[in-house]
Amino acid sequence: MKPRSSGKLGTESLARRGLPLQEQIYRRVRAAIADGRLPPGERVPSARALAGELGVARGTVDAAYARLAGEGYLLPRGSAGTVVSPALHADQHLPDAERATMPDRRRTAPLPFQMGLPALDAFPRTLWSRLTAQMARRLGADMLGYPDPAGLPVLREAIGAYLAVSRGIACRPGQIIVTGGYQAALALLARLLLRPGDAAWFEEPGYFKARYALQAAGAQLVPVPVDEQGLQVEFAATLAPRARLAVVTPAHQSPLGVALSLPRREALLAWAETANAWILEDDYDSEFHYVGRKPPALKSLDAGDRVIYVGSFSKTLFPGLRLGYAVLPAALVERAVSALATERFGEDALRQMVTAEFMAKGHFARHLKRMRGLYAARQKALAQALLDAFGTEVRLTLQRGGMHLLARFPEQGEDAGMMRRAAACGLAPTPLSSQYLGSRREHGLLLGFTNVPETRAAETAALLRRALHDPLPARD
Amino acid sequence: MKPRSSGKLGTESLARRGLPLQEQIYRRVRAAIADGRLPPGERVPSARALAGELGVARGTVDAAYARLAGEGYLLPRGSAGTVVSPALHADQHLPDAERATMPDRRRTAPLPFQMGLPALDAFPRTLWSRLTAQMARRLGADMLGYPDPAGLPVLREAIGAYLAVSRGIACRPGQIIVTGGYQAALALLARLLLRPGDAAWFEEPGYFKARYALQAAGAQLVPVPVDEQGLQVEFAATLAPRARLAVVTPAHQSPLGVALSLPRREALLAWAETANAWILEDDYDSEFHYVGRKPPALKSLDAGDRVIYVGSFSKTLFPGLRLGYAVLPAALVERAVSALATERFGEDALRQMVTAEFMAKGHFARHLKRMRGLYAARQKALAQALLDAFGTEVRLTLQRGGMHLLARFPEQGEDAGMMRRAAACGLAPTPLSSQYLGSRREHGLLLGFTNVPETRAAETAALLRRALHDPLPARD
Repeated sequence: MKPRSSGKLGTESLARRGLPLQEQIYRRVRAAIADGRLPPGERVPSARALAGELGVARGTVDAAYARLAGEGYLLPRGSAGTVVSPALHADQHLPDAERATMPDRRRTAPLPFQMGLPALDAFPRTLWSRLTAQMARRLGADMLGYPDPAGLPVLREAIGAYLAVSRGIACRPGQIIVTGGYQAALALLARLLLRPGDAAWFEEPGYFKARYALQAAGAQLVPVPVDEQGLQVEFAATLAPRARLAVVTPAHQSPLGVALSLPRREALLAWAETANAWILEDDYDSEFHYVGRKPPALKSLDAGDRVIYVGSFSKTLFPGLRLGYAVLPAALVERAVSALATERFGEDALRQMVTAEFMAKGHFARHLKRMRGLYAARQKALAQALLDAFGTEVRLTLQRGGMHLLARFPEQGEDAGMMRRAAACGLAPTPLSSQYLGSRREHGLLLGFTNVPETRAAETAALLRRALHDPLPARD
Repeated sequence: MKPRSSGKLGTESLARRGLPLQEQIYRRVRAAIADGRLPPGERVPSARALAGELGVARGTVDAAYARLAGEGYLLPRGSAGTVVSPALHADQHLPDAERATMPDRRRTAPLPFQMGLPALDAFPRTLWSRLTAQMARRLGADMLGYPDPAGLPVLREAIGAYLAVSRGIACRPGQIIVTGGYQAALALLARLLLRPGDAAWFEEPGYFKARYALQAAGAQLVPVPVDEQGLQVEFAATLAPRARLAVVTPAHQSPLGVALSLPRREALLAWAETANAWILEDDYDSEFHYVGRKPPALKSLDAGDRVIYVGSFSKTLFPGLRLGYAVLPAALVERAVSALATERFGEDALRQMVTAEFMAKGHFARHLKRMRGLYAARQKALAQALLDAFGTEVRLTLQRGGMHLLARFPEQGEDAGMMRRAAACGLAPTPLSSQYLGSRREHGLLLGFTNVPETRAAETAALLRRALHDPLPARD
């Protein structure tokens, strides 16, 4: 056993602007693993030791370690301490041809309950490969130069046609920009629209990854509570009437899953027009509304042209594609395209061609339809399995769509502890409390079901029950 | 003939921070063309009218229009006015299958003298397509998830091996990040390292596109003159001793082509260590040093770990690939990877796999060797053709490599006028004076030769001569 290695994690104090301490510790450990300072099998410093060294609470390090364990980076071994997962570097011992297929040292299937991933086992990979090969042959010499920074016209047209039919959004292809995913669109728009100190409404609870891009742009986030009608718009307007931006998930609120009601939608649009503010509509999983009528996009009601609609192919196709898009109000098109040209100069053509072809040939609509059926079945199976396993110990919130469900365990107390127990068993639920900015937090587990096949729902629910009922694994 | 259409260009005043007025007008017109407000064949407002409306000098609009003409967006038709190039939307009348191969509405071959493009006609497209198809088949379900935000390990290893052999740089793959090109790396690093108002040394003249990303991060650019030994380091240290960053092109200064001398390199490194500043080494065309010994990378001398080395595949492979990389000092790795995760979450795997395979199989080294031979021949042919066409009217500066040459025409006066004349004939030289930040500017034309085949050198030089000797085309 090698000695403990706090030194390898760096000794700078934790003071990065805009990142919670837990996130900083998480990233620091991950970086040390990624660049080889912490090799597989190496023991990491105990949570207590690291907390003391960094001057943070023990619970903060615990939470970061639990997340790393949940994602397969760390392996808690009870009283033997926690080590870097020995499986991580397995690819280094493979022949070259095999290694070229590795996206990452983490060559792991999605863990049960992991959020934000579509069903990777159900993606039509063979079809996608075939289209890619076809499009690669069409890559003419005239396509080798700099691409249009705003996106390939053929893809922007396909996105426009899809949004018109599926989301009721009328826009010209010239208003659509192609980005490297939701996160890239959000970061770009935050830099474009916000000056340091500008207030931005943020759903409480809300999609935690969106925080960082906003905070990196200097935003002052105003947490706005969400109830069964969605964001409490009137309350927000008294909290921060002069906010520059509101970031919302109207179709299925992330993470609670509720839809923003029509009166709230109207109030939000009216506020934005009056305040000359922008609304960023994150329509992240509207495609997976599989019971009843889908709520229309907020953008479809946007007479005043204050809504920036942002979509992503990470959930509808796959996250590794790194493509998303935004529909911009006319007043922002030119500035956004300028910023894209300054910051990056567009996405490469091939991926865009393949995606456009996938859409134009009808594969996209067929795939979404198939996924809606699959997710409805997986949601139902997991919900039933949880009820079977936990009985009255669990309260489930089922929305009419989405990719995860919310399970509350009133007798269990803090969800960070539950997450730690589950992570030790190879499960990756997300604590609801981690999605809050303020100190009033509800507790529960967010359980992604997209990668839990129906046939494994029962055993997965049973494993969660065992994990939650076991005592916490001993830690050094 | 439709009426003039200044209205379609928007009536907001020109006040974007960090962008010169000419650039703003250029982008505004391009945006109006891209989103269809200005269709092909439509007459654009006269330079005089637009200048009056926007409250800028006539020459500013002239320069923007000349650039747009040079890039094929606008067609000047003498007294009939200037129109949007009627060829631009030709793809809209093609069948779907053909249109899917269009990267952009501008489906044009590179124009003679265009800078910054490799020889697109000489890229091994068939081989690249084949590797892409192979790699697409290897895209396993485990690769559909989120990629490593720092880049595919197999590509980072290939880059590391290449840099060790070719540039004398010793680094671990963990210090290498993969980015969406040079511009993306620069924008990321500028945001990471600079606070608004921080001084940054910038070569005078220097690569103008790099300005914007630095200025967008709030940098105060300090122009530092370049002489025959490169950047005047001692002078810079008196101008702005406390600068946070120096952006340099030590191998072949952009655009003058000189190499930074060894004493200057040592002085630069010593300054950075003393001032605790960072050096960003843009090694943009070191691969194309085709006479004598290649100067080593500044990074190879960097005992104090102050140099960030940035490279791009845009010149060595093709710009449409949108991939570049940076070698980071140990102290910056973690912050950069965090920022990559916040802002984008990495590049998609397929392109990285294809690039890594291209490198690992030796194609990259072979391609570069072939291009060095080709560019040496094209440079020599164009230089000879210019001397034949212009005789004593031209003074050529030939460096031992690079992708463009500098031609001075002492009798011609301002280079913006020369550029306008050349653009009207379908040539796309870059005025040397446009590469300066300050008001003391030298004049001359930067002539990219990578896309001028030897067999066309004579006619291209003759066309330039006719263009420069003709009176300026009449403008309305």
